[in-house]
Amino acid sequence: MLTHFNQTGDAHMVDVGAKTSTARIAIATGKITMLPNTLDLIIAGNHKKGDVLGIARIAGIMGAKQTSSLIPLCHPINLTNVTVDFEILLDEYSVRCVSKAQTIGPTGVEMEALTAVQVALLTIYDMCKAVDRGMMMGDIKLLEKSGGKSGDWKAV
Amino acid sequence: MLTHFNQTGDAHMVDVGAKTSTARIAIATGKITMLPNTLDLIIAGNHKKGDVLGIARIAGIMGAKQTSSLIPLCHPINLTNVTVDFEILLDEYSVRCVSKAQTIGPTGVEMEALTAVQVALLTIYDMCKAVDRGMMMGDIKLLEKSGGKSGDWKAV
Amino acid sequence: MLTHFNQTGDAHMVDVGAKTSTARIAIATGKITMLPNTLDLIIAGNHKKGDVLGIARIAGIMGAKQTSSLIPLCHPINLTNVTVDFEILLDEYSVRCVSKAQTIGPTGVEMEALTAVQVALLTIYDMCKAVDRGMMMGDIKLLEKSGGKSGDWKAV
Amino acid sequence: MLTHFNQTGDAHMVDVGAKTSTARIAIATGKITMLPNTLDLIIAGNHKKGDVLGIARIAGIMGAKQTSSLIPLCHPINLTNVTVDFEILLDEYSVRCVSKAQTIGPTGVEMEALTAVQVALLTIYDMCKAVDRGMMMGDIKLLEKSGGKSGDWKAV
Amino acid sequence: MLTHFNQTGDAHMVDVGAKTSTARIAIATGKITMLPNTLDLIIAGNHKKGDVLGIARIAGIMGAKQTSSLIPLCHPINLTNVTVDFEILLDEYSVRCVSKAQTIGPTGVEMEALTAVQVALLTIYDMCKAVDRGMMMGDIKLLEKSGGKSGDWKAV
Amino acid sequence: MLTHFNQTGDAHMVDVGAKTSTARIAIATGKITMLPNTLDLIIAGNHKKGDVLGIARIAGIMGAKQTSSLIPLCHPINLTNVTVDFEILLDEYSVRCVSKAQTIGPTGVEMEALTAVQVALLTIYDMCKAVDRGMMMGDIKLLEKSGGKSGDWKAV
Repeated sequence: MLTHFNQTGDAHMVDVGAKTSTARIAIATGKITMLPNTLDLIIAGNHKKGDVLGIARIAGIMGAKQTSSLIPLCHPINLTNVTVDFEILLDEYSVRCVSKAQTIGPTGVEMEALTAVQVALLTIYDMCKAVDRGMMMGDIKLLEKSGGKSGDWKAV
Repeated sequence: MLTHFNQTGDAHMVDVGAKTSTARIAIATGKITMLPNTLDLIIAGNHKKGDVLGIARIAGIMGAKQTSSLIPLCHPINLTNVTVDFEILLDEYSVRCVSKAQTIGPTGVEMEALTAVQVALLTIYDMCKAVDRGMMMGDIKLLEKSGGKSGDWKAV
Repeated sequence: MLTHFNQTGDAHMVDVGAKTSTARIAIATGKITMLPNTLDLIIAGNHKKGDVLGIARIAGIMGAKQTSSLIPLCHPINLTNVTVDFEILLDEYSVRCVSKAQTIGPTGVEMEALTAVQVALLTIYDMCKAVDRGMMMGDIKLLEKSGGKSGDWKAV
Repeated sequence: MLTHFNQTGDAHMVDVGAKTSTARIAIATGKITMLPNTLDLIIAGNHKKGDVLGIARIAGIMGAKQTSSLIPLCHPINLTNVTVDFEILLDEYSVRCVSKAQTIGPTGVEMEALTAVQVALLTIYDMCKAVDRGMMMGDIKLLEKSGGKSGDWKAV
Repeated sequence: MLTHFNQTGDAHMVDVGAKTSTARIAIATGKITMLPNTLDLIIAGNHKKGDVLGIARIAGIMGAKQTSSLIPLCHPINLTNVTVDFEILLDEYSVRCVSKAQTIGPTGVEMEALTAVQVALLTIYDMCKAVDRGMMMGDIKLLEKSGGKSGDWKAV
Repeated sequence: MLTHFNQTGDAHMVDVGAKTSTARIAIATGKITMLPNTLDLIIAGNHKKGDVLGIARIAGIMGAKQTSSLIPLCHPINLTNVTVDFEILLDEYSVRCVSKAQTIGPTGVEMEALTAVQVALLTIYDMCKAVDRGMMMGDIKLLEKSGGKSGDWKAV
């Protein structure tokens, strides 16, 4: 039974009022795969000019703050920390994004970390689409989370 | 050279003022893969109660309207149409999402279609995460677009 | 059959791409009824200090601009005009709100006019609730609209 | 004297910094009245296809989260729970909406519950307006609230 | 070394999870200078009709609530109080704005106070620009702040 | 008489429905003055790591897109171009920001250009405030605008 529905099957925001406030961390990842030449442009920009990844990082951090406006049943929360990092995967012609979100509260931050990844990847797509419309985003998932009643979890 | 940067490498919103206004269509897709039992819950809800996909559809459509707030260099545009559809891929334990965005204007709607897909998939993740934290989103890409100076494009 | 659903019953934003762009006007109304003493406070403020209606007017105008973010299947549109006016109904201990919204485009502005009314009434409630929690909002409806294929319409 | 104004009559956000944090609940209601045929379409959709109320429920919940952006002097708060329920009033040709909002904090959630009702009713209007422009929203009010210094309150 | 960057120079939201929650106050100021005739219009409106400053006050308060959406690395916070006040500087043909923001939490509210000032001044500009495009905004700065690990601070 | 008020002194969004659609450009400027050491940190980051101005540029561009949500009586418009540039004023220990906004439509983009400048300057303040709380923003004004009935205008 999914927790976002009541017994008649109607959606609701889950009541977290009785949950204890704990330190919450979630780490999510994803990647975008592209043409070799597109990756070269991103790498070049990162060093000199046209900083695609710097802009995608900012977009991801700002996107995490919009999570509860975007995802219908997410609770508004006060994020205490968001980081977005990128790794160039040369042999896969990909950029991998890893985002960490943190808060202290009654509900987790998995969605904030995942939203940061999605918005960061979308921003890379946007900035490179004029030269490469066929880029593909994938492997987007939660890596680990800690805090809360359900405790720690790690992707296998 | 990426169009979102000027000659000194600084980012800017691309000037579309001189582009002609044409009918624009973009279709994007993506999927989320899960445990067999999670897919069963979604299928059950779709028929009876707990309509995960109905909610994800609304989130995707609303998300498309936030594209220019989320993606730093996207132009604000007046969408004339957004659709979000789902297909159950039983043998892949996946839900596939296809979104179509349309406008009449000087700039394309690829980002709107992709954002709709991302927000729809994130919403499915959110609603099912209590039973399946290991869900993975992937194969997110543009399928086709038409309109504008660059003309028609289809994913191979 | 409702236009916001396709043949399988799935919601979508109605495609307005083929509609002709015409001048659109919509006028909506609504009222909030309160204790005699609360109405006195509003009237006093309107003249001297504590301008409840001036603030509610601004909130209504700003609310109209958020319509497509609030109402799932509304199209984003460029409003060319919004007005919000109030009338004191002394014998009904009420404030009546009338809002007019205008645009030039392929889709109507009924929802923008109604949203302006709702947000204006909610703002009056908010500012007076410390002295009168029992206020009631009602008679909220479209008064008339013009423009578009369906032409003119007036409430009977 | 209204609490949202200082002694010179200028508006301000009320200082809640010294208020104690307590569990807050507010329940609001409202209804939308329509043609018999329109109500039939909503009832039909609820069972089979074209789920107007399911979409209005999501819009109401998401609307509650935008309350402090819409209502000028509302405090931003972290809602811990929002529910939106509908009841078909066959003999009044109406749909009644009841929303409950909850938080733990220094300020109440009356406006969040009322905003959820207003946005839910507006969404019903939007989805049915092509067949029934004369629908009317009314009886929108607070039913009860608890928590905070002013304690419990119920509509008579 | 700037705190918003890590050791490799990448931006991140500063982790405030370990900071203690204290009462925070920040006061900011700024002014807008205009033609003598423009100031006369504002003064006239303030007394009778066309209340420019009343509207700018509301815009400033609402703007403060959007700070974390506007400023990339700002934390979302629950403001407990915002005030915006204006002073007419007759001999400088200026309107001076002073804003105070307050919260109880792990991070300061300097940016919220400054954003309130900026949005209030911009709103004055917007409402008077048809008669005076040459208005200038300046002297925008933090006046004082208290709370948090760094303690009290006052502009010299 | 200010155009944002009607004859009874009530605010309204100015009706631009009858205005012709023309190409609009507005250029605005402003600067932030700081301690010599703070400017050194910004200059260093611009070259190597900690790119304050790159982030402020993105914030300014994104801020321009929020203008009609922030400024009560601004019309929502579809910006076709936004640029934000910075100049280091070594002898004034300042960073100067120049923003250009463009659209094709019935209303000007002065507020969008000014909002981009304000948000860019606020972002610089935010990122440097831990080392320099006394920074001051000023000289914020329109430089020039073209298009529309009132034609070209340049600051003297």
